[in-house]
Amino acid sequence: MKMGCGENDSTIIAEVFLAAELRGHASHGMIRIKDYYELWKSKRINTDPSIVVVHESPSTAVVDGDNAVGMVAARRSMELAIEKAGKAGTGWVATRNSNHFGIAGFYSMMALKHDMIGICLTNANPLVAPTFSISRMMGTNPIAVAIPAFKQPPFIADFATTPVARGKLAVAEKKGEKVPFGFVQDKTGKPSDDPTILKSGGSMLTLGGDRVHGSHKGYCLSSIVDIFSAVFSGANFGPFVPPSVAYLPVLDKKVGKGTGHFFGAMRIDAFQPASEFKAKMDEWIETFRSAKPAEGEEKVLIPGDPERESEERIMREGIELVPAIKEDLIVIAKELQVDFA
Amino acid sequence: MKMGCGENDSTIIAEVFLAAELRGHASHGMIRIKDYYELWKSKRINTDPSIVVVHESPSTAVVDGDNAVGMVAARRSMELAIEKAGKAGTGWVATRNSNHFGIAGFYSMMALKHDMIGICLTNANPLVAPTFSISRMMGTNPIAVAIPAFKQPPFIADFATTPVARGKLAVAEKKGEKVPFGFVQDKTGKPSDDPTILKSGGSMLTLGGDRVHGSHKGYCLSSIVDIFSAVFSGANFGPFVPPSVAYLPVLDKKVGKGTGHFFGAMRIDAFQPASEFKAKMDEWIETFRSAKPAEGEEKVLIPGDPERESEERIMREGIELVPAIKEDLIVIAKELQVDFA
Repeated sequence: MKMGCGENDSTIIAEVFLAAELRGHASHGMIRIKDYYELWKSKRINTDPSIVVVHESPSTAVVDGDNAVGMVAARRSMELAIEKAGKAGTGWVATRNSNHFGIAGFYSMMALKHDMIGICLTNANPLVAPTFSISRMMGTNPIAVAIPAFKQPPFIADFATTPVARGKLAVAEKKGEKVPFGFVQDKTGKPSDDPTILKSGGSMLTLGGDRVHGSHKGYCLSSIVDIFSAVFSGANFGPFVPPSVAYLPVLDKKVGKGTGHFFGAMRIDAFQPASEFKAKMDEWIETFRSAKPAEGEEKVLIPGDPERESEERIMREGIELVPAIKEDLIVIAKELQVDFA
Repeated sequence: MKMGCGENDSTIIAEVFLAAELRGHASHGMIRIKDYYELWKSKRINTDPSIVVVHESPSTAVVDGDNAVGMVAARRSMELAIEKAGKAGTGWVATRNSNHFGIAGFYSMMALKHDMIGICLTNANPLVAPTFSISRMMGTNPIAVAIPAFKQPPFIADFATTPVARGKLAVAEKKGEKVPFGFVQDKTGKPSDDPTILKSGGSMLTLGGDRVHGSHKGYCLSSIVDIFSAVFSGANFGPFVPPSVAYLPVLDKKVGKGTGHFFGAMRIDAFQPASEFKAKMDEWIETFRSAKPAEGEEKVLIPGDPERESEERIMREGIELVPAIKEDLIVIAKELQVDFA
């Protein structure tokens, strides 16, 4: 709020950071507060935006986020998708002129309480090379899909279209460890196990890792996320997506406005009675949960299980505040004249 | 037509087989004619179906395929999705009580001439194990997305959510070759390079190959395809999807009707003027095509390039009729009293 965000907007930003921490995706939690703060300090983000709908049909809309903090533009867009779905059965919103929005899963989960399926895609600053290439053309472009069940917890898939998220490389780097082959390549396109390789012209690989193991399919997925998020909305696509940190310069070339997202909401009862669908989802989940584990494995997981287990654990144990992040927060609190308890 | 299909239905079936051959997916082409014929002979497929819409909203519908040949149910469903999109901006159709439908890309491409994006998903008979499991719970569950451009050819992604399609294992087996690790596992869950391992309790792996390289993301994708195709529509899901060949027995347990598909059509001008979008897609495609190739690689491909190159080549050179397939076709022609030229 000291940065000029309204109370309502500040709440959603805090909620998304908190959800990331609880769900075990700390790479999208408090560690990012400094990045957002620095973007604001360098006047690269708008904390008092006028978010507008620039185009619509009964089941679709395009939203211009007015360079808002990503969470603020994303919440408004997903609310609109849910509203459209209420009338037309499904709602699809493409959003331009936005910024980094935290975890994609948060917005897909907004649909659940309306007995809808929620979908969320976003592009991101380029780190990933297409199959056969060494150029960083795509972000880790995540896909999130949330599907309600009845007695069972919801099915929630939320994953980058790369073998690992960028944060995993940073962790390995801090520990001085190598990473498995299949995550990154060097500047000539040779497989690498060096988590710092991005600093010397390397790039991340798409899901699949190499052509033999289907990296072209990861490239397809990442491309689809990019096109839905940016070409539909009029945002920057591929290599032109702006950085989500202030220490990287604004790009010279623009092909659209800001970062792009894509949101979907599908009313279950546009297909069948919600109670029947949710009972069937219970059956689906129970069937998959009872799949036989491989030797040495304990059990088969349902998408969303690891995050729910993390949430239960952290609600008991509390969030661990990493010293380096705490120091950052103390500095920010001081600069903004906020009490840091 | 000798099997009881109407002329219109026979044409679409032939068109999809032909498209598979032209696009270089011969595993879904003429080799399947015998499978379809045998299913019909054993009265497991309905060549004179009454395909009906059982539920709908402005942008959605559920179709019951009446156990039709998959192509027939799929074409009708995609036509309905396109019709819905014409009015509501987008159209989404879940189809149950269908069968194997050839290549998913065919139906997604139906949207292109209407200046729409086309999407097609289908579940399939279970061969694939979720991460940490040895149970065959999912098919190779493909995703197809077709996006129109202006001067450039359309973007067409059409891929199984496994590192390779099943057909690649069959090819390696016939040649007496091993396959790379990451495609299959043995009955205990140990990585295997044996393409025949499915015959001794093994299973295929999801895109990513193992947990370290993101197989849980391939499992998420395959699950989403299964839920959209089967739980939305009321078809059989996961391990209960009926076999697409007559030599495998009908399953005892049913959790729905037949095989399930899911179709989407999104009118471009529900988001922005079609001419602007298509010009932007040209720019997207040209940007990605100009990505720098890795050392030893010739060029970066756009999804759809390999299939289009195959189509151009085969239109010049003709389709190679494999002797074993020709023999099958001669037998079928004789049994159905059709001239085989």
